Amino acid sequence: MDLHGGNIYKLKREKGIEVLDYSSNINPLGVPESFKDAVIKNFDSLERYPDIDYTELRQAIAKYNDCSIENIVVGNGATEVLFLYMKAIAAKKVLIIAPTFAEYERAAKSAGRDVKFFPLSKDFSLNENLLLDFITDEEVVVICNPNNPTGKFQKLEKIEKIANALEKKGKKLFIDEAFVEFVDGWEEKTAALLKHKNIFILRALTKFFALPGVRLGYGITLDLELLEKIKEIREPWSVNGVAEIAGKTMLLDKKYIRETEEWIKEEKIWFYQELLKLDKVEVSPTETNFILVKLLEDNAKSFRKKMIEAGVLVRDASNFMFLDESYIRLAIKDRDKNQKVLDALKKVMEA
Amino acid sequence: MDLHGGNIYKLKREKGIEVLDYSSNINPLGVPESFKDAVIKNFDSLERYPDIDYTELRQAIAKYNDCSIENIVVGNGATEVLFLYMKAIAAKKVLIIAPTFAEYERAAKSAGRDVKFFPLSKDFSLNENLLLDFITDEEVVVICNPNNPTGKFQKLEKIEKIANALEKKGKKLFIDEAFVEFVDGWEEKTAALLKHKNIFILRALTKFFALPGVRLGYGITLDLELLEKIKEIREPWSVNGVAEIAGKTMLLDKKYIRETEEWIKEEKIWFYQELLKLDKVEVSPTETNFILVKLLEDNAKSFRKKMIEAGVLVRDASNFMFLDESYIRLAIKDRDKNQKVLDALKKVMEA
Repeated sequence: MDLHGGNIYKLKREKGIEVLDYSSNINPLGVPESFKDAVIKNFDSLERYPDIDYTELRQAIAKYNDCSIENIVVGNGATEVLFLYMKAIAAKKVLIIAPTFAEYERAAKSAGRDVKFFPLSKDFSLNENLLLDFITDEEVVVICNPNNPTGKFQKLEKIEKIANALEKKGKKLFIDEAFVEFVDGWEEKTAALLKHKNIFILRALTKFFALPGVRLGYGITLDLELLEKIKEIREPWSVNGVAEIAGKTMLLDKKYIRETEEWIKEEKIWFYQELLKLDKVEVSPTETNFILVKLLEDNAKSFRKKMIEAGVLVRDASNFMFLDESYIRLAIKDRDKNQKVLDALKKVMEA
Repeated sequence: MDLHGGNIYKLKREKGIEVLDYSSNINPLGVPESFKDAVIKNFDSLERYPDIDYTELRQAIAKYNDCSIENIVVGNGATEVLFLYMKAIAAKKVLIIAPTFAEYERAAKSAGRDVKFFPLSKDFSLNENLLLDFITDEEVVVICNPNNPTGKFQKLEKIEKIANALEKKGKKLFIDEAFVEFVDGWEEKTAALLKHKNIFILRALTKFFALPGVRLGYGITLDLELLEKIKEIREPWSVNGVAEIAGKTMLLDKKYIRETEEWIKEEKIWFYQELLKLDKVEVSPTETNFILVKLLEDNAKSFRKKMIEAGVLVRDASNFMFLDESYIRLAIKDRDKNQKVLDALKKVMEA
């Protein structure tokens, strides 16, 4: 399991070390002020159970995505939506495009599905013709877009081609867009623009808005029968009242959204170009807020340890399917922190 | 499914009616100030994922219950802990003592268990000898204590006798103590004092502290293998960061706890005695913060409608197993509100 920032607690607890957490891909602009204000104003709403239908919350999400409320399902983080999807589908076999986030496999297996992997090309690009030829009896294809940990984003035309081909065969496409809002001009590139009933899009509301602690994810699909099935099997009140407040507030926070878009646009290029200047690494181009880095003269496990001593926690990416021991993943944060991480990388590499 | 306060949203949405919610059993003292202060101070903690092990939260809960951290499991509301328990146990059949909260059945069935019910006596007392004779191949017995919706509380000696008998046969006892802290002197009466490995105690942290919107429940058990199994199957980060803050703060709020204990001790007796004065009802004695009422000249469905028109939402209790159409359940709140509900009851009954 990808422990994200979980590791910082263990480090602090067991070793008393406070580090700059570059293993977790969270917006460095931090908790939106609009969210704080809304919580303070609505503390008393927490003394009621949440609306079991989450009507207002789903309305806010539908408006943000320019779709209908009946196509939205919310969950306790994207994690719950993913697990519900895997339980609700009628499928024996799931095909996951990898390397990618490990929870798809865990969710599919915990729902009793068999899992197979389709490997990305050596440069982590996706050859959709090879993919479509590869598929046999798998009923669902899972793609993370932009992909964690590679940072690559598949164009809408390619996603549409895959969705079309799968639709003809009665198969489904699950697209995790947890990081899509960090992609430049994402509104014109999201699969939510497609009108395929076999598509299910997963979103994590709280990455872009720096609120992973609040736990709010959602899914978008035109497949109403699937949503009905999810409704049947889900546990009641799984989305908490603070997440309700967050969703109803922060999607309207245009200032925060604009500032985030400006930050990521600039820093993604700057950090990538600075990393390119380092000798002992190969850097994958990214379209989102993290970067996959291949170490040419060290292995991820030992490098991670050295980086902790230099005050930075990086993600050892060697346990992603199809990645070897040379890969680490770095978050992208603000200029000040990115500079500190560059300094630490140089220090460790030159030691 | 028991919709609790969920109905108030539907009433407001569909009919524009705002009512006094007596269907939901929440502490009327409201959201603790200590919780509000802690959230405001710790907003920034929400920009990190929660600690995946919830170490500090579990420590706080263990301290509150005078037990070891290794015996505590936390969940996204008591609901998640209940569903995890039902998934984790190795059992084909579950026996539920009824009438009681409907989610036990739903959780057991969703985990593929068969469910059987043991009926309480006519006055809702529990004859433990009859219960023990009744059990055949059921591996788990579920008891809600104090019981929702009857308000009756089983003494520790009786619980111990049942736990002993079940232990000898290799069977388990699941005790929902969601409302136990409303029982006078509960610290000396909780099953957490027993040292039986076959007992699992469910608690809802956010009923006593008026924070159902925050979603925080927990379980206590000495069965470490069961806890290990739960750890394996659970979804990561299901407890949100605000629930973490709540748990770490409010269990230390001695003032709030004392004020709540003083309120419920007084109001439980007063409201019960006032209800006894009404002609057209039979009232069950309660040891917790709600009261089961039998209507002698009306049915619950029609009475509930009339009460909504009088500004009060009561719980139609007729869909609890073994209860007929004459039962409603009332919350106990503060004197002012309880008086308003008494007035409304009289108005409706005399109309």
